Amino acid sequence: MSEVYAARRTRLRERCNTGGSAAALVSRPANVRYLAGAAPRDAVLLLGRTEDLLVCAGPPGDPSAPGRLDEALRVQVLPSPGGDPAVAAAGLAAAQGADSLAVEEHHLTVARHRAVRAVAPRLRPADLGCAVEQLRVVKDEEEISCLRIGAEIADQALGELLESILVGRTERHLALELERRLVDHGADGPAFPTSVAAGPHAGRRGHRPTDRRVEEGDFLSVCLGAAYRGYRCEIGRTFVIGTSPADWQIELYDLVFAAQRAGRESLVPGASCRDVDRAARQVLDSAGYAEGLPATMGHGVGLENDEDPQLTPAAMGKLDACVPVTVEPGVHLPGRGGVRIDDTLVVRPEADGGPELLTITTKELLAL
Amino acid sequence: MSEVYAARRTRLRERCNTGGSAAALVSRPANVRYLAGAAPRDAVLLLGRTEDLLVCAGPPGDPSAPGRLDEALRVQVLPSPGGDPAVAAAGLAAAQGADSLAVEEHHLTVARHRAVRAVAPRLRPADLGCAVEQLRVVKDEEEISCLRIGAEIADQALGELLESILVGRTERHLALELERRLVDHGADGPAFPTSVAAGPHAGRRGHRPTDRRVEEGDFLSVCLGAAYRGYRCEIGRTFVIGTSPADWQIELYDLVFAAQRAGRESLVPGASCRDVDRAARQVLDSAGYAEGLPATMGHGVGLENDEDPQLTPAAMGKLDACVPVTVEPGVHLPGRGGVRIDDTLVVRPEADGGPELLTITTKELLAL
Repeated sequence: MSEVYAARRTRLRERCNTGGSAAALVSRPANVRYLAGAAPRDAVLLLGRTEDLLVCAGPPGDPSAPGRLDEALRVQVLPSPGGDPAVAAAGLAAAQGADSLAVEEHHLTVARHRAVRAVAPRLRPADLGCAVEQLRVVKDEEEISCLRIGAEIADQALGELLESILVGRTERHLALELERRLVDHGADGPAFPTSVAAGPHAGRRGHRPTDRRVEEGDFLSVCLGAAYRGYRCEIGRTFVIGTSPADWQIELYDLVFAAQRAGRESLVPGASCRDVDRAARQVLDSAGYAEGLPATMGHGVGLENDEDPQLTPAAMGKLDACVPVTVEPGVHLPGRGGVRIDDTLVVRPEADGGPELLTITTKELLAL
Repeated sequence: MSEVYAARRTRLRERCNTGGSAAALVSRPANVRYLAGAAPRDAVLLLGRTEDLLVCAGPPGDPSAPGRLDEALRVQVLPSPGGDPAVAAAGLAAAQGADSLAVEEHHLTVARHRAVRAVAPRLRPADLGCAVEQLRVVKDEEEISCLRIGAEIADQALGELLESILVGRTERHLALELERRLVDHGADGPAFPTSVAAGPHAGRRGHRPTDRRVEEGDFLSVCLGAAYRGYRCEIGRTFVIGTSPADWQIELYDLVFAAQRAGRESLVPGASCRDVDRAARQVLDSAGYAEGLPATMGHGVGLENDEDPQLTPAAMGKLDACVPVTVEPGVHLPGRGGVRIDDTLVVRPEADGGPELLTITTKELLAL
């Protein structure tokens, strides 16, 4: 695996044109993990002039720290506790004879940035921008396979929940139960806080579980994901509680399903992100739900649950093959509830069979 | 409750000497919650020249958002999704005729800070520093009562776990089980990721649960806390698994217990933070464990689990009455495990009975 991380660092070095005398400081944890294999707490990665270094506040050998550090990478542990690895890394960059230092200005705080500049005043400051995030967009098959396993785990956890009694249980309990099942099936943990939304809450994106109990006649929407070796998939489904859904529930479900299918079917290499958003959004728009739609119809997933690309009306850029994204339209009717349907898929060329669906739980409207 | 938040904002205004023409932008979520009662996602608080405003990216009325917003506070929702409330707030500060704007430079990123300055170039930039964090150090009785309830919940969850079978279960499962019990007993959720550390992991601060199963003869250390109305207490205990502890286990336990007691007993108003650290640390030091001790013997708790004051060798400042802190010394022997004992207490004058222990689970060495 070591070569993978070295190759990523080489690509980053090429991208930011660091040439021979510049250095880059990577502080965002998911970016550190992408380039170093693991991100011990507060560690930063210095892409140095003569050597790359992982600078840590404490011993990196914590057996419970996520990820497995690239063994080829030299590790520098700060001698005194409480120091800032970013500041130490800037000093090391200067010692290596770099003449400029690019930092992640979208991650580093103003106060840390000032301390970084103070320790190495001769280093010309520069912005690394989202260079690492951009490298992370297209995944290799190893990364996709982690997402695929995560999706299987989430499908299993969700499937087991559907076989249990739901009426009378609170959103909070169902969410915890799902998270326990994710871990049972081998997840590192939940990919993000599990959302369970019953009755009037159903269909709300990112709803945090409350003490609302599931009742007969409710819509119930659930959104969860497994983190597996750091990779975070996502699945969302909506169910009806009771024997048979009401007419308005069937209508709303069919509409969101149609929107979600339109989004999924537009996932081809070369499609623009905003066209995928539009494909799903216009189905809901034309049914009169333009108001109150979520800002996004989907987003990339990887080492973070919500990463580039964003599938929004204003998004720039096109989709490439091997980019995993969610497609997750939803409609929420205040006071009544609503529907969200959410899959993780990988963009693939038509010759390879088109988009690869990772989350395979049925999208029929189940009455539970 | 509204007056509480208004009084806090008034105190902040006095502290930062904003006078009549300056404004302050609070972006750190726990600080926003402290001053506004709730912190909707991405919301910032503008302490304005003519009026205070909560600026949100979306509707603040989310029934599942934590906290209850001060009703007296005007709320401004950004018209378009994807905008940065901090940038909008800076524009509003300028429109109110402020001539300077203090921001939380330890929280705002370089990139956001630049956008804030660009939208209001005539506002003189200033640093609010940790002014809000400092206000948060001394708690009112309402806040302490939330911590007390959280501690009761954590004690209950831990007590129930001790009555169940532990041998053969993994750290991960025990941690999830504890978190479920916290919610069962009325917590908003865990105050921080629950740590369960068995065998060679025991005694490590912040250990993340693994698939290691609990075995006979293990030390088992557990650290958990309940969040209750946003307030986050903490308790840590170490047990022995099996009928009777080994001699080395009893010795190590007694030592850490003595250190923890020394720390607790030094909690008096006016004590310097470093003296509390020293009281606990020197017990471990003089037994030959100076190397590898954690950087801190305790820390404040409140709306964040780890907040000021820090009980470290280099800490400045003294403890006041009504400051809740943890006292949590520990020793970890690589390959063998170790002991941590952790309580949340409130500093109280001796006339009031001395430090108030919130986490009352026994600290006898239990063999489970």
